[in-house]
Amino acid sequence: MTAYLDHAATTPMLPGAVRVLTEQLSRTGNPSSLHAAGRAARRVVEESRERLAASLGARPSEVVWTAGGTEADNLALKGLFWARRTQDPGRLRVVVSAVEHHAVLDPAFWLAEHAGAELVLLPVDGSGVVDVDALRDELATNGDRVALVSVMWANNEVGTLQPLDDVVGLARRYGVPVHADAVQAVGQVPVDFARSGLDALTVSGHKLGGPGNVGALLARRGLELTPVLHGGGQERGVRSGTLDAPVLASVAEAVVEATGARDRTAARVAALRDDLVTRVRAAVPDAVLRGPADASTGGAADAAHRLPNNAHFTFPGCEGDSLLYLLDSAGVEASTGSACQAGVPRPSHVLLAMGVDEVDARGALRFSLGHTSSAADVDALVEALPGVVERARAAGLAVVR
Amino acid sequence: MTAYLDHAATTPMLPGAVRVLTEQLSRTGNPSSLHAAGRAARRVVEESRERLAASLGARPSEVVWTAGGTEADNLALKGLFWARRTQDPGRLRVVVSAVEHHAVLDPAFWLAEHAGAELVLLPVDGSGVVDVDALRDELATNGDRVALVSVMWANNEVGTLQPLDDVVGLARRYGVPVHADAVQAVGQVPVDFARSGLDALTVSGHKLGGPGNVGALLARRGLELTPVLHGGGQERGVRSGTLDAPVLASVAEAVVEATGARDRTAARVAALRDDLVTRVRAAVPDAVLRGPADASTGGAADAAHRLPNNAHFTFPGCEGDSLLYLLDSAGVEASTGSACQAGVPRPSHVLLAMGVDEVDARGALRFSLGHTSSAADVDALVEALPGVVERARAAGLAVVR
Repeated sequence: MTAYLDHAATTPMLPGAVRVLTEQLSRTGNPSSLHAAGRAARRVVEESRERLAASLGARPSEVVWTAGGTEADNLALKGLFWARRTQDPGRLRVVVSAVEHHAVLDPAFWLAEHAGAELVLLPVDGSGVVDVDALRDELATNGDRVALVSVMWANNEVGTLQPLDDVVGLARRYGVPVHADAVQAVGQVPVDFARSGLDALTVSGHKLGGPGNVGALLARRGLELTPVLHGGGQERGVRSGTLDAPVLASVAEAVVEATGARDRTAARVAALRDDLVTRVRAAVPDAVLRGPADASTGGAADAAHRLPNNAHFTFPGCEGDSLLYLLDSAGVEASTGSACQAGVPRPSHVLLAMGVDEVDARGALRFSLGHTSSAADVDALVEALPGVVERARAAGLAVVR
Repeated sequence: MTAYLDHAATTPMLPGAVRVLTEQLSRTGNPSSLHAAGRAARRVVEESRERLAASLGARPSEVVWTAGGTEADNLALKGLFWARRTQDPGRLRVVVSAVEHHAVLDPAFWLAEHAGAELVLLPVDGSGVVDVDALRDELATNGDRVALVSVMWANNEVGTLQPLDDVVGLARRYGVPVHADAVQAVGQVPVDFARSGLDALTVSGHKLGGPGNVGALLARRGLELTPVLHGGGQERGVRSGTLDAPVLASVAEAVVEATGARDRTAARVAALRDDLVTRVRAAVPDAVLRGPADASTGGAADAAHRLPNNAHFTFPGCEGDSLLYLLDSAGVEASTGSACQAGVPRPSHVLLAMGVDEVDARGALRFSLGHTSSAADVDALVEALPGVVERARAAGLAVVR
């Protein structure tokens, strides 16, 4: 029996999402076709759009279907940059937090290298919280030259919830649109697009119990976005490509279920996570909890500022990859950080931005829980961990010698 | 019972592709994750890559997974343009045929409007065959300024097979890479990437019996492509985004089945198509078959230069949309052209490029067959068509008056 503690990388599909997808697979008909089969497929697409929108506080017309979180982030960053630059060639500054996922950072870097953008990385504090004062200064100095701001709803490595109200409030004064990658947040914490005041928000299917290869960018009405994928003109010309009714029905079902069960699931998962944190620290006393912690409770996870499913530690003297492989051998599946960066022999940019030194950052391990998690998963981890850490330290020492 | 004659818009999933997708849906694990679940998902992804590659005469390392044909076309056009321009700022000319799908045309137009590209549209003859002499002249005059050539393998509206050997032979002399959108060709005619000499080739899942939201760009080894989607660095940095094992296994199964059964299916479908053409012309004598026709057989479809599943007519005095809706009411599903352009009140750019006048072009109807097609589908069409054409003509006259 495997203990899967890597739900932030991908989480099993919810049974309802599997059922809807399976039911729809026998459907024929391109939603762009005008005949009965096409119109029936279109109805599924639009009902799915309505369901997803209603679950996230958005209007149906604000949903742009994409192939996933990465495409939605690329559309937000490049689409906003190009559209704003077309309106005003002086708006070249792209302001993003230093702890964004690579699906935000890498488009921003590319725009800087390739399209004349000026990249501004907002620093974060030791918990991974973006420095709002730095944003205030940037806007005060360069407000009329900023194309967009992108700050994630919740960090994928250390679970930090960002002060988006403050970010949106500041940016609004300067008429600067704000995008948030909410890939890790949807289904974990309340996400209401209208209430957030955001201009654009990224959703990913497979992170919340939906199928893969699908996601959405919520984009407020009237927001100008230059397409990243040109073609047949689907999604009102903002994102071309044939829409797939089965996958869209399935991801909508997943969003409805995940947000509907959110409070209950989050409470259950947070209790498991808190137990995990307590017992990991008991088992490995020098393990350091990274991300928002609550000093008043002796350093437990800070529930108000952290995703309920996230725990993240550095283990002094260990290589994260060694810990990962040794845990895996013991049937416990975790991650050193972002799955997308797995195998990349560099310390996490998130930890470095938080001020963790390179040596400590190399001993990182993320545990992320989800709808299938149970106490047995935590038990398996806690049982295996002391021996694993001991062996990883021995391996680390061997390398140093 | 509906007669579905719109397989070029989308075709029902092959049973094997449904089975594989359904079996894989219970899988958990991000293929980028290093633990056992991740590695198992990675194995599925790589086996799927090998299966797809082997069916199309490509190496596994030449497969770049995408979210579909549109994304693959965008990656080919923009990725090649940007990469070539980075190497040599003078290579600004983007040469595409005038009858490309919008997923090729629109990126090309956008590059011209936005990124300094010089767009060159190659004319076609009355059958939709690209003018190779025009390409020869373009290369002779501007060979060192051409970034790329994109000519589709087979046209999606009138089924014309393009002389890609000639196109590739010419472009190679000037070191110019050639991309072909083979979305309509794979599974219909032999497609061998290595033998074609192409540098890049687009495949779409849902057009050949696979799932939606997935496709691939075959890109020969060493071809420089600037990413369209930046992020986690999947697909060797060319295309970021979490890979989805179930969908990739399913599309690979579809490609294996569709190409394996190709000769048998194509012969059966071509016979149905030929019967359809003969009987449509008998039922509506002034209907004009568009696309490659064989004068020696009195104007039947030209099997050597046309997709086996395609028939395309214009009906004088009719609006294609009227024909479509009236046929639909009679349980026959067809298309006026590209599904992506359905509802767009403009005559097809393909027909106009072939020299069809605007009035005639408005009476277009495409019939496309596939693996589920039967003689009953043709019977239903032929039975309904005379009355439908009569009513469409009456409606057309009413509009004129």
